[in-house]
This record gives sequence, structure tokens and C-alpha cells, in this order.
Amino acid sequence: MTADTGYTLGEIAAYLELECTGDPAVEISGIANLQEAQAGQLSFLFDPSYRKHLLNTKASAVVLSRQDAQNCPAERIIADDPRLAFARLTKLFDPAPMPEPEINKSAEISSTALVGENVYIGPHAVVDEQAIIESGAIIGAGCVVGARCRVGKNTRLWPNVTLYHDVALGDDTIIHSGVVIGADGFGFTLDRSSGRMQKIHQVYGVSIGSDVEIGAGTTIDRGALNDTVIGNGVKLDNQVQVGHGTIIGDHTVISGCSAIAGSVRIGSYCLIGGAVGIINNLEVTDRVEITAMTLVSQSILKSGRYSSGTGLLPSGLWKRSIVGFRKLDGIIKQLRNLEGRISKLDHGKQKK
Amino acid sequence: MTADTGYTLGEIAAYLELECTGDPAVEISGIANLQEAQAGQLSFLFDPSYRKHLLNTKASAVVLSRQDAQNCPAERIIADDPRLAFARLTKLFDPAPMPEPEINKSAEISSTALVGENVYIGPHAVVDEQAIIESGAIIGAGCVVGARCRVGKNTRLWPNVTLYHDVALGDDTIIHSGVVIGADGFGFTLDRSSGRMQKIHQVYGVSIGSDVEIGAGTTIDRGALNDTVIGNGVKLDNQVQVGHGTIIGDHTVISGCSAIAGSVRIGSYCLIGGAVGIINNLEVTDRVEITAMTLVSQSILKSGRYSSGTGLLPSGLWKRSIVGFRKLDGIIKQLRNLEGRISKLDHGKQKK
Amino acid sequence: MTADTGYTLGEIAAYLELECTGDPAVEISGIANLQEAQAGQLSFLFDPSYRKHLLNTKASAVVLSRQDAQNCPAERIIADDPRLAFARLTKLFDPAPMPEPEINKSAEISSTALVGENVYIGPHAVVDEQAIIESGAIIGAGCVVGARCRVGKNTRLWPNVTLYHDVALGDDTIIHSGVVIGADGFGFTLDRSSGRMQKIHQVYGVSIGSDVEIGAGTTIDRGALNDTVIGNGVKLDNQVQVGHGTIIGDHTVISGCSAIAGSVRIGSYCLIGGAVGIINNLEVTDRVEITAMTLVSQSILKSGRYSSGTGLLPSGLWKRSIVGFRKLDGIIKQLRNLEGRISKLDHGKQKK
Repeated sequence: MTADTGYTLGEIAAYLELECTGDPAVEISGIANLQEAQAGQLSFLFDPSYRKHLLNTKASAVVLSRQDAQNCPAERIIADDPRLAFARLTKLFDPAPMPEPEINKSAEISSTALVGENVYIGPHAVVDEQAIIESGAIIGAGCVVGARCRVGKNTRLWPNVTLYHDVALGDDTIIHSGVVIGADGFGFTLDRSSGRMQKIHQVYGVSIGSDVEIGAGTTIDRGALNDTVIGNGVKLDNQVQVGHGTIIGDHTVISGCSAIAGSVRIGSYCLIGGAVGIINNLEVTDRVEITAMTLVSQSILKSGRYSSGTGLLPSGLWKRSIVGFRKLDGIIKQLRNLEGRISKLDHGKQKK
Repeated sequence: MTADTGYTLGEIAAYLELECTGDPAVEISGIANLQEAQAGQLSFLFDPSYRKHLLNTKASAVVLSRQDAQNCPAERIIADDPRLAFARLTKLFDPAPMPEPEINKSAEISSTALVGENVYIGPHAVVDEQAIIESGAIIGAGCVVGARCRVGKNTRLWPNVTLYHDVALGDDTIIHSGVVIGADGFGFTLDRSSGRMQKIHQVYGVSIGSDVEIGAGTTIDRGALNDTVIGNGVKLDNQVQVGHGTIIGDHTVISGCSAIAGSVRIGSYCLIGGAVGIINNLEVTDRVEITAMTLVSQSILKSGRYSSGTGLLPSGLWKRSIVGFRKLDGIIKQLRNLEGRISKLDHGKQKK
Repeated sequence: MTADTGYTLGEIAAYLELECTGDPAVEISGIANLQEAQAGQLSFLFDPSYRKHLLNTKASAVVLSRQDAQNCPAERIIADDPRLAFARLTKLFDPAPMPEPEINKSAEISSTALVGENVYIGPHAVVDEQAIIESGAIIGAGCVVGARCRVGKNTRLWPNVTLYHDVALGDDTIIHSGVVIGADGFGFTLDRSSGRMQKIHQVYGVSIGSDVEIGAGTTIDRGALNDTVIGNGVKLDNQVQVGHGTIIGDHTVISGCSAIAGSVRIGSYCLIGGAVGIINNLEVTDRVEITAMTLVSQSILKSGRYSSGTGLLPSGLWKRSIVGFRKLDGIIKQLRNLEGRISKLDHGKQKK
């Protein structure tokens, strides 16, 4: 289910500034995989394992490399990096509505807020005191923008996003629905006299760069002793948790459901898989890759790929393996003992 | 804390179309476990380990099998499948308010939306362009229904649900609060010339079947190259994440906090435990059971039960085990070496 | 980014009822770590590893113990428990806006709801039938308070919180944005005749104590056979999931993204790390500590520290270890076999 937007092949090639071999007047109504594309659709080839589908594709045109182009039964757009060219052209087919600038009459906007030009503020949104909404920003229905927040130019908040006070968002940033930024970090200390946990108020804010995308339901807490910082170009998937005072470097990508505790420092260009956990106060250097569901329990100071966990097993075999896991310390001792006994036997034999 | 709704035992038996032995006029004010039930309450017995509580129950009536009925000190409703009978009758005691059909005056409904008969749309809800709300649907307070969405007959959105554009929901479906359906899937590719991540726009939508239930805070992304599809009768618990283009077969049940990446194909009648991770592009066939917190790192093409992880241990023992885990490759080599040395010794002995 | 609030050192010491050595008129504009604090800021020392930063701090004053005070180059506040003193004073610098009592005109409040004195109800909030909002409570923008809920005295709901019907919150409790309390627990049973899952309606409610804090995006389900109960003083971090009928004892602290299934009983003063999973029907006794990303797959009846999982490894080494994990049962058998063969060799030798 998608809204078709019509472009000609020539228009698409011009948008990409790429060479088009074939009829530029061909109408392209949508995009699809090589094997699922229908007439009128544009497809792409960059993964070698899909090369086998090229000859039989029904796509009207394909974005691909010059060497693959010769085997292409359809019209072609030639790209040095077909994956990037494809990514760029998807924008043309994005059915997301772009609201016209408007301040909905049901929105509640503080008289001390500053709202720039060409801004959209949707129904039932709230903009609190001294908040700044820069020009071209889109604030979806039901969003709450707290006191002293800044929403950068052309930044879009999809509906039902909540920003607490003192949250700064850069330009060209996308925040998906259900995101909460700036809630109190999780800080308590036991009061021994009363037996209750004393709250540590989280007095700093959150600073988020430009060209950032934050997935649905993600939560980013405000800092206790320094701002929580998300660098430029960072991409966070859905339901990620970022703890108080954590700093994430530019262009790092974190997949869904990862839990980053507080005061973690993550470098730039890291690739963090889904459902990864990183415990508090650790450092992860630049260009680290962490595989899905890994627990990062110590700092990673050297770039590379890291993992934890066990492989997937049928439950019967798995149960026998976890019994062995529990005995590993004993296994090592037993091995050492056997080694000693064999050495003695060897020695005895050699003596003879 | 629950609202009591009064039925007689006879009315309940009639609703279930089951036999009632005892006084059908007994008033039943609520339901509870055998050991916690009070006079006036209805209880049930299907788990054999609860049989010991039957004789001492204070319940006024019990739903149970014919063979258990003879030891029951209370009135009885006899069922071949007492668990199913109990499940069915819980509906009678559900205190959830059922709002009367009404379009709240504070709701913002596009003039191009189509709203069926007997629909409830709550305060501050938003229904965007060309959305279709079928008859009997309930749209809770603060919900946002995006452009071109379809909400099926008698489907209920609890408050503060967000549907992006091009999301189709079947009939008799329940969507709990905080759910976000149709946000952009997580797709980027590195643009080497600029060093930034290029967004892959997610141009397809989401299609959700009938008789589906989706738990609070769950997120289901729209597809990049095909619709994300949730089959009929699927039940997703709270805070589940479903990635772009993933397809989940009919009647599959997924427990809380599981993270399903993109382009995963899951079969029918699977039982997926809590906090399970499934990495992208994998296939899981029909009737697969996956235990809690398992990482599915390869396709599962054969029905059965699968697991990963280690057992729970006191932390001291666990620390020694993870040292052993790190040495496992060495342990295997050492074993091979010892085996060789013993064989040599054996051989020497036999020679003599 | 934080709003500075001005206090003098003397005022802060008086608030803490602690001794201040130095000029009580010194103006304090904020708080920071020893190594990051600037003139005008207050710092603290309780972690011995920070002692090295004391001599060079630029802070205008430091909260610290009497023995550390002699090496302090700044003004001092002397505390027996400097960590607790610091936690307590953070409140003075909290920039969170405290709204004045007001019922916003866009809020939708049932005529049968009871609203106490000095209550704030924000824009677009909804308070349903027979709900009770006690005095001093703050209901943020876009919140929904369901039928028959009770929100205790001075309890604060940040924006966009959803309470279903029959949810009771104690006094002095903080609920962060995106929280959903009282959604249906995850209960179904297979109806073999139709092949579909029959819903078990969740007829009980949720009861939450006083002095509780619940983090952003956390979900707490209503019970099927008893209320879900969160004790006094409990602190739940962001994106925690609590299943139906689960009971959490007083002052237990649960870190982010933990998934607690249904009918779990957790004791008091437990410390549960991030991304922990606890499967249904288990019991965890008082004062249990569970490390991050542990799966609790059996009851814990003895206080102590528990863990599961493997340590973090470079992916190459990790792959060799998971091969070994799969072979653990075989390794144990092989060891037993080698032991037997060595014993025989030993025996043969001794015989000679």
C-alpha cells in the first residue's frame, strides 16, 4: 500500500545527475526489488546475490553499475555506487505527507515562545515558555515541546513526541512518534536513615545535532552533571534507550531496542546492532561494530567487531550446553589435572 | 481494584453454552484463583498443580472438567476445556469502559476522511486525509490516524496510539496505548563522498490483519520495498519492535520486548518468548517456539524449540564460567592433544 | 544547557542542615564534577577515585567528608554521607518548570471526576469518569487518566502519560512521559476448534505505591487474577515492562529496558540491572542483585548477586567460543573417557 508518484526515467536520472541509457520518457510509478518489480517500476542492483534476478526482472528500469548494465533487459540508470543512487532516489517516491506551514488553532503556544517562518504546528501540540521553533520546522499533532527547547531548521517531529525542558535539536533532524527526550536520568542514592532512595535531580539537558534521525519510542534522558549529547548525523532506531550524560559521536548508527546506560562515551562511525546493552561509565572508541544482543561490559578502546552471547541451538542441545557452561571452571581444573597425570606417565615411560 | 459486574451462575453457563450443576441463581460478582477466591466469586481449575486447592476453595462456583467436578465443594460449570471456558467468560467481567458512539468535538477530522456508523472518536484525536474509519471502530483520546489509513470494523485504538500514513488495520483488532505503526524503517547507506548516512526513504506501508492485538508501546515500521505485514490473529505483547518489510504469519504470538529486525519472515503459530532478538533477512518457519531472550542469528527452517544464552548463576560462579567460555577453543585443542598423548601411551602399553 | 538558579553557599548548607566552612555568602550558580566545575559552581567528592581531582578543582565549593576537607582548595560543606548530601541538594538546581495550579480550558474532565485543590491539569489532558485527582497533583499535557483511577497527592504525570481504568497511584510519585499503565496483560489460550487465540480479559487493575518513580516509555499491565502491584519507593527506569499480576516489593530499583513477565513476585530492596529478563511465575526474594542483561530463568530464593550471559569478546574469538559452547556436552564426555583411560594406565603402571 503506497501512494504512487509519477516521474519519468529522465527526471529521475537528472535528479541523481546520472547517465540514463534508454528512453527518458518512460514513466516510473514506484520502486521494488528485481524479482517483485512490475512494469512501470524502477528497480536496482547492488547486492551480487541479486544478479541472478536481473535477466528476468519485469522492472521498466534498473539502477546498476556499468558492468552489470550490459545484462540488463530494461532501461538503465548507470551509477558508480548503485546503492547510494538508489537510496537518494527513494525520496522521490516517499508518500509521507508534507504539511503546509500553519499553526493549528488547537495548538497551545506560549506567548514567550519564538516561532520562525514556514513552520507547521499540528493539532493539540504544545510549545512551552521560551521555546524556539526555527523556520521550516514541523511539529506534529500532540507533540509537547518543553520550556527553553530549540527545534532546528527543517526539523520534523512526527506526532506525539515529547521534549522536556532544555532540549536542543539541530537542523534537518527527524524525530519519530512516541520519542521522549529529556526525561530525568535514573539517579538515586540510598538514604540509610530512612531506608528510601533519594532522587538525584537531573539538572542538565540534552543536546542533539543536525541530520539526526531518532526512531519511534526511543528515550534519551537529560544529564545529571553534563548534557546528554547526540552528535551530528547519528541514527538511532526504534526503542533505543540512552542514559543520562551519555555522549554519542557523529554518524554512529544504533539499531532497535539497544540500551545504552548513563555516562557512556561512544565514538564516531560506530555500528551498534539491535538489542545491544552497554553498561554505565564505559567508553567505546570510533568505528567499533557490535553485533546484535551483545552486552558491552567493559570499555572497547580498539576499533573492530565485538560480540557476546551463545549461538542459537535446538533447546535440547542447548540445555546440555548450559550444564557444561556451569562446569567450565571445573573442566579447566580437570584438564590441568589430566595433563599433569599424563606428563607423569610420559615421564615414567621415558625414564624406562 | 476492579469493577464488579453481576451475573448469575446460570447466565454464565448459558453464555458459555455449558452445563451447570448446582443453583443457577447464585450471584457471581467476580473471578479469582481457587486459593484467593471469596464467596460470590467464580474460580476455575485446569492446571493439575492447583487441584490441591480445590477442596478448600471459598469460591461460590468453579469451572472445571467432569472428572474434577466430583471433588468440588462449590457449584460447578463443567467444561471439556476448562481453560478455554474460563478465557471466554473473562469477557463478562472486563471492567473496560465501552464508549458510546460519538465524535468528540475536540477531535480534528479531515473533511476527506470517511467515518462509518457507530464510531467513537475521542477527545483530541486526529484523523488525516482520506483515512477510513469503519463502523463500530473506537479511536481513543489523543490518537493520530495518518493519511490514507484504514481502521477496520470494531477495531479499538486505546488512547495515544499513532498511525502514520498508509497503515491498514483489519477488523476486531486491538491496539494498545503508545503503539506507533508505520514510522520509517531503519534504512541508511553511507555516502562516502560526504561521510554522512544517506536515508533510504521507506515508501511502502503496513498491513495488519483482523483479530490482532498489539501491546502497549510496540512499534511496527513501514516497509522500504514491500509492506510490513502482520497476519490475522497475531498477538504482540508490549514493547515489541517489528522492522521494515517483516512478515509475521497468522496466529503467531510474540511476548514482550522482543526485537524483530527488518525483512524477517516468520511463519504461523509460532510462540516467541520475551526479549527475543531476530536479526534481519532471516526466515523462521511455522510452529517454531523460541525461548526467552534467545538471539535468532540464523534461519530456522524446521519446527521445534530453540534457545540461546547461558543459565542463571550466582555471579561468582558465573565469572569463572565466562573465563572458561573465552578459553573453549583452547580447551578443545588441549583435549585433542591429551587424547593423542594418551593414545600414544596406550599404544606403547599394548606394544609391550 | 541548564537554567541557573542562584543560592548562596550558606543557604545550601542550611537546606542540608550541614556545616559550612568558608564564606556563606559565596554565590552558587550550578553543580558539576570536580574536574569540570567552574568558578561559581558547587562540586562534591564521595568516590575515592575522584580524590585526585580535588586539589585542582575550580569549583567555588565542594561537598565532602571531614577527612577530605583538609585538602580542599575551595569552600566546603562537610557531610557524613557526601553522596546523600549531594543528592539532596540537586533539588535546588532542578530547572524543571513547576506549573501553577490551573485546569487548562482544553482539558476534557468528566463531570463525575473529583479534582482536589491546587491541581494542575495541562492542555489536551483527559480525566475520565469517577477518576480522583488528589490535591497538589500535576497532570501534564496530553495525559489520559482512565475511569476510576486515583492520582495521589503531589504526584506528577509528565506529558503524554496514559493510565487505563482502575489504576491507583500513591502520593509523591513521578510518572515520566510515554508511560502506559493498566493496558491488558498478555493472556490468550488456543481455541483448538477455531485455531485462533482466545483472549483472557484482564479484569483486575494496577496499584502503585507512594514515592515511586517510573521512567519514560515504561509499561505496566493490569492483572488477570490479581492487581499488578508496585510497592512504595520503587524506582523503574525507562522502557521497563512489567507483566500482569506481577508484584514488586518496596524500594526495589530496576534499570532500563528490563522485561518482567507476568505473575512474578520480586522482593524489597532488589537491584535489577538494565535489560534483564525475568520469566513468568518466578519468585525473586529480597535484596537480590541481578547484573545487566541476565535472564532469570528460575526463582531466586537466596539474597545475593546473580548473572547470566557470556563476557564481551572480539567477534573472531567469540565465534570459536560459541563453537565450543555447542560441544560442551561432548567435551565433558570426552574428559570422562580420558580420565578413565588415564586411570587404567596409572593402574597398569602401579601394578608393575
